[in-house]
Amino acid sequence: MGSQVPEIRIIGLTGLPLIKKGDNIAELIVEATKKLNIGIEDGDIVIVCQKIVSKAEGRVFRLDEVKPSPFAEEIAKWLEKDPRLVEIILREARGIVRMGDHHLITQTKHGFVCANSAVDRSNVNGGKSVTTLPVDPDESARRIRGEIKRLTGRDVAVIISDTHGRPFRKGAINVAVGVAGMKPIRRDVGKEDLFSYVLKTTYVAVADELASAAELIMGQSSERIPVVIIKGYRFEPSEEGRATDIVRPMEKDLFY
Amino acid sequence: MGSQVPEIRIIGLTGLPLIKKGDNIAELIVEATKKLNIGIEDGDIVIVCQKIVSKAEGRVFRLDEVKPSPFAEEIAKWLEKDPRLVEIILREARGIVRMGDHHLITQTKHGFVCANSAVDRSNVNGGKSVTTLPVDPDESARRIRGEIKRLTGRDVAVIISDTHGRPFRKGAINVAVGVAGMKPIRRDVGKEDLFSYVLKTTYVAVADELASAAELIMGQSSERIPVVIIKGYRFEPSEEGRATDIVRPMEKDLFY
Repeated sequence: MGSQVPEIRIIGLTGLPLIKKGDNIAELIVEATKKLNIGIEDGDIVIVCQKIVSKAEGRVFRLDEVKPSPFAEEIAKWLEKDPRLVEIILREARGIVRMGDHHLITQTKHGFVCANSAVDRSNVNGGKSVTTLPVDPDESARRIRGEIKRLTGRDVAVIISDTHGRPFRKGAINVAVGVAGMKPIRRDVGKEDLFSYVLKTTYVAVADELASAAELIMGQSSERIPVVIIKGYRFEPSEEGRATDIVRPMEKDLFY
Repeated sequence: MGSQVPEIRIIGLTGLPLIKKGDNIAELIVEATKKLNIGIEDGDIVIVCQKIVSKAEGRVFRLDEVKPSPFAEEIAKWLEKDPRLVEIILREARGIVRMGDHHLITQTKHGFVCANSAVDRSNVNGGKSVTTLPVDPDESARRIRGEIKRLTGRDVAVIISDTHGRPFRKGAINVAVGVAGMKPIRRDVGKEDLFSYVLKTTYVAVADELASAAELIMGQSSERIPVVIIKGYRFEPSEEGRATDIVRPMEKDLFY
């Protein structure tokens, strides 16, 4: 294949141990890359699934220790959901966006609009516990990025990804809930226009597209692959970029 | 790097000519892969941006030949848009979903909910013409898939992709508007659950994630890359799979 052919590689990090509270995820990532002989390079993007970050940060809650409020009990009755689960969903929420047909769509305290405040029941303590998003996933991404820099000397971008449903289209896709080291949105000024007549500006949520690309590896295997490395994508470096930059303010959205 | 490491490759097809009405896109794709020495293999996914398919199918409309209806004139006044553009948007639409703040969100005749019925003004005839989606993008994908099979003997999946905005999150992402040869949605039954306690079923819109992954190559270059080949993703083959399978029926959606 010609060397001028543009190519991006999406590489799955196999062999990571089960993550528990207090684990240093960056350290485990770097160890795994060494075992697999994958070199971490400047400009790589490390995509980490939300659940292992939440576990490492102790964002795991036992349902049998949760006392639902009367409000949570009421909503749980309407939706036929576990009231303890609803209680945790409401604690994570800034507000309820839609409710009905067994679905509870909320806006999380970070600003993300998603089902159940992104509270996840599967695969944690046999379903008796749930995970929530990290308190500040952008900050979590920064910590992982900083640790990778310390351990390898390499400047990578880090994205924390989660699987979210969306309006109008069936099937969930992975999106970025935490970002560090890059601008999450690419601005193209009249880039597509070969005739330079209309200078259309397009904004593309590349952090979400990178998270979706990573899911293709994370999701297809029967093996657990919670971390993916993407090589060959030239992102715009930024110390300030955050996943919350992607959140559209309520007053600017036609669908709230 | 160990051979057991899962990897997906996203390869950009450079060197395609400008597409015009009547062009055989599959033929041009196969020629370009030969020039670049990229072998097309069974199981590859060929992602083609909507605009070149629309151009090949003659879905280009000159604005100066459009006579807007009084209804289009009225909406154009509200939104401060070109009434001729609004006329074409309405012709492509099954209905208006939201309107306001200069935005016109419609449901296309195929069922997709997006801005301006996916009518695109940039980069066509110096902005004096617009493209619309193909009449039946799933059928367009089938034709390209069939032609690639005829020319190379290889069984690939084909996705026609377009850049759509979405509620709640800033920045557009690429999604699938046409699919052939694969199931667009992957169903995971309790896959994530290592403890086999909760058998949660997850549906993931992999065709959308593949389209987003392809955009990372299509969008980052200053060169025009309207076709991308993805290698290493094991999709579920299907003769029946269609992008319209991803459309959530209005009555099942909390956001219409």
